Amino acid sequence: MNAKPVHAAQTLFPVVDDCLQVGGVPLTRLAQRVGSTPFYAYDRRLLTERVAQVRMHLPHSLELHYSMKANPMPALVQHLSTLVDGIDVASAGELKVALDTGMAPERISFAGPGKSEAELTRAVAAGAVVHAESEREIRALAKIGEQLGIEPLLVLRINPDFELKGSGMRMGGGAKQFGIDAEDAPRLLALASSLGLATLGFHIFSGSQSLKMEAIIEAQAQTLLLAERLAAQARDPVRILNIGGGFGIPYFPGEAALDLAPIGAALDAALPRVHAALPQAQVSIELGRYLVGEAGVYVARVVDRKVSRGQVFLVTDGGLHHHLAASGNFGQVIRKNYPVALGNRMSASGDTETVSVVGPLCTPLDLLAERMDLPAAEVGDLVVVFQSGAYGRSASPQGFLSHPDAPEVLV
Amino acid sequence: MNAKPVHAAQTLFPVVDDCLQVGGVPLTRLAQRVGSTPFYAYDRRLLTERVAQVRMHLPHSLELHYSMKANPMPALVQHLSTLVDGIDVASAGELKVALDTGMAPERISFAGPGKSEAELTRAVAAGAVVHAESEREIRALAKIGEQLGIEPLLVLRINPDFELKGSGMRMGGGAKQFGIDAEDAPRLLALASSLGLATLGFHIFSGSQSLKMEAIIEAQAQTLLLAERLAAQARDPVRILNIGGGFGIPYFPGEAALDLAPIGAALDAALPRVHAALPQAQVSIELGRYLVGEAGVYVARVVDRKVSRGQVFLVTDGGLHHHLAASGNFGQVIRKNYPVALGNRMSASGDTETVSVVGPLCTPLDLLAERMDLPAAEVGDLVVVFQSGAYGRSASPQGFLSHPDAPEVLV
Repeated sequence: MNAKPVHAAQTLFPVVDDCLQVGGVPLTRLAQRVGSTPFYAYDRRLLTERVAQVRMHLPHSLELHYSMKANPMPALVQHLSTLVDGIDVASAGELKVALDTGMAPERISFAGPGKSEAELTRAVAAGAVVHAESEREIRALAKIGEQLGIEPLLVLRINPDFELKGSGMRMGGGAKQFGIDAEDAPRLLALASSLGLATLGFHIFSGSQSLKMEAIIEAQAQTLLLAERLAAQARDPVRILNIGGGFGIPYFPGEAALDLAPIGAALDAALPRVHAALPQAQVSIELGRYLVGEAGVYVARVVDRKVSRGQVFLVTDGGLHHHLAASGNFGQVIRKNYPVALGNRMSASGDTETVSVVGPLCTPLDLLAERMDLPAAEVGDLVVVFQSGAYGRSASPQGFLSHPDAPEVLV
Repeated sequence: MNAKPVHAAQTLFPVVDDCLQVGGVPLTRLAQRVGSTPFYAYDRRLLTERVAQVRMHLPHSLELHYSMKANPMPALVQHLSTLVDGIDVASAGELKVALDTGMAPERISFAGPGKSEAELTRAVAAGAVVHAESEREIRALAKIGEQLGIEPLLVLRINPDFELKGSGMRMGGGAKQFGIDAEDAPRLLALASSLGLATLGFHIFSGSQSLKMEAIIEAQAQTLLLAERLAAQARDPVRILNIGGGFGIPYFPGEAALDLAPIGAALDAALPRVHAALPQAQVSIELGRYLVGEAGVYVARVVDRKVSRGQVFLVTDGGLHHHLAASGNFGQVIRKNYPVALGNRMSASGDTETVSVVGPLCTPLDLLAERMDLPAAEVGDLVVVFQSGAYGRSASPQGFLSHPDAPEVLV
């Protein structure tokens, strides 16, 4: 008989006197400081440590970029901007926040399908790197460069001819809206050149949220081989090579943290050849969720405790309007529970009970935890959803049912 | 051999010279008036006609409430407030908008699990009806009533002992966070009375988004029987009886519009007995999606047309950040296409092609139509997503990837 899969242990946030600490502040006190629940809290120290950990395992020559779509909170982006080598943005709105941090514009890169002329103009005016994803974008960049009298910093985003296996989201391989099909690159490299644009390099992204170390190693190896093939077709030396990200974090029962050491070892072995073939290339990896996802919690307060036909419901003031992913409605086929705890009852020495944690919305979708064993809760207790630092607040329908927004704090 | 299921024909919005008209304005002109894409547009005439159609089919003695969680746009709520008999709200934020319309407070009712003391206080101070969903809420209402010196208008929301079969969302039957289990009502009626609170009546909601006429008729019959049983247990005469909603609209291929006539006929037959048993009761139905869902479209502009490995992608400036439901990420288990058209090429006399319509976000979830046959499109064309008047903008993660918000217009 197999044991029921459980969540990976939550060990990043310390517990003192039964109370979870975020940024060294007891959660109950932090709730008082914020002044209301629900809220998101991100731990500054955990962000710093995660970057250090990534740098320790990955080759020194590999640059580390923050993909800020994972969490665009300005204070958090500011903090990470002092720790990473570049910021990858996905909209003109994100570009503004990234520039405001003081990160050098040429270390900010803008990717995403369907960039409008207005967005491209803003990126060129900023002096940011643009990852062009189509022939139209290349043509628009050439025109905008002429109009502004500024040389656009052009990188081609490539839709590879392989995918990151077992990833949460496949973003390369097959027919995709992302990037330029690898086999179409020679034509577009020639087009860019004919339009007077230098191509600085390539961005190759094959998938995200993978917990399979072997799959990441294989995708990175293929990415580097593809980059060498592309470089051979390019007219300009490759100066920028972004090999994507894809590192996942464990959300659901049975999932385990990724082991970075073998990934780093494989890159250590592979990079010398790349540096020899592309001597001018800065090679970078872009990580979003992996840097911030585990450093954040979502905190809501129990406002009611109900028993309906034998089942216990903890009704909280937070729910899917703030944390869509935890409700199971963001790219998940089968709903599973995020790791959830009672932040002010962390040492479950007393009685536990099986409860469903729900939000205040008039919809059965508003579910933060389904039939989970938690310490017996009372009205006023603080429900904590872990692994909430990425794709939380910004990826949720805050306006749904016109409840108050959830503030974010970086502690 | 079965034919492939198709979307129900879109006939509500007229077409003139190949161009869809919203509120009598050609879509291309409306886009100029709004000044940017994407946007939501709601048709005032269609709202008015839908209310008239519902009133025509349902008994005259049945009051019609608008459940504004479906669409809280203030101008739209204002318009409907002149046509319906009451507004049902799901938060203090919605309560504010409803009060601003001038609707009499006692015709506004506030339902939803986990109402905070602050929210209950606002409702009591407003003079709105509160649908209590738990013992805690009843106790809080009694306390607040005393503190404010205002008699709370209390209705009990009941979790029935049956469900609306085949509904998109089951909100009654079994163990639920919604309402008070029907079998627990006598205890809580007695509690309210002992706390000095009169109970004005009952709110019984069994499910939503049903396209099965027989299931709705059956659920309504059971609701009325349950109401009579509850009335027999009540100490005060029933003045308010809200029998819920549940009327669905067709979204996906193979779905057909609900036939209201048999539902009206069944209510016509059943209501005299209810009125005889509960002579003081105003009986109301609450509809949200059914009143507004088909009166709205989401409009985005094609910014790129790409062919990747043989597949055509129309990349638009709109996507799941504005319209989560159309992307398939809001309560759907299997993603299906909403009805989509090119608003400026409505007469598909020319060539068609199979395309996927995607948004500008860096995620494969950002999909508005998957492999759909549409007239051959060009950059600048207007993609229209029909059936978008309910649970559209407000139920979407507008902040995701920091793209601009989508304005809403009522035309």
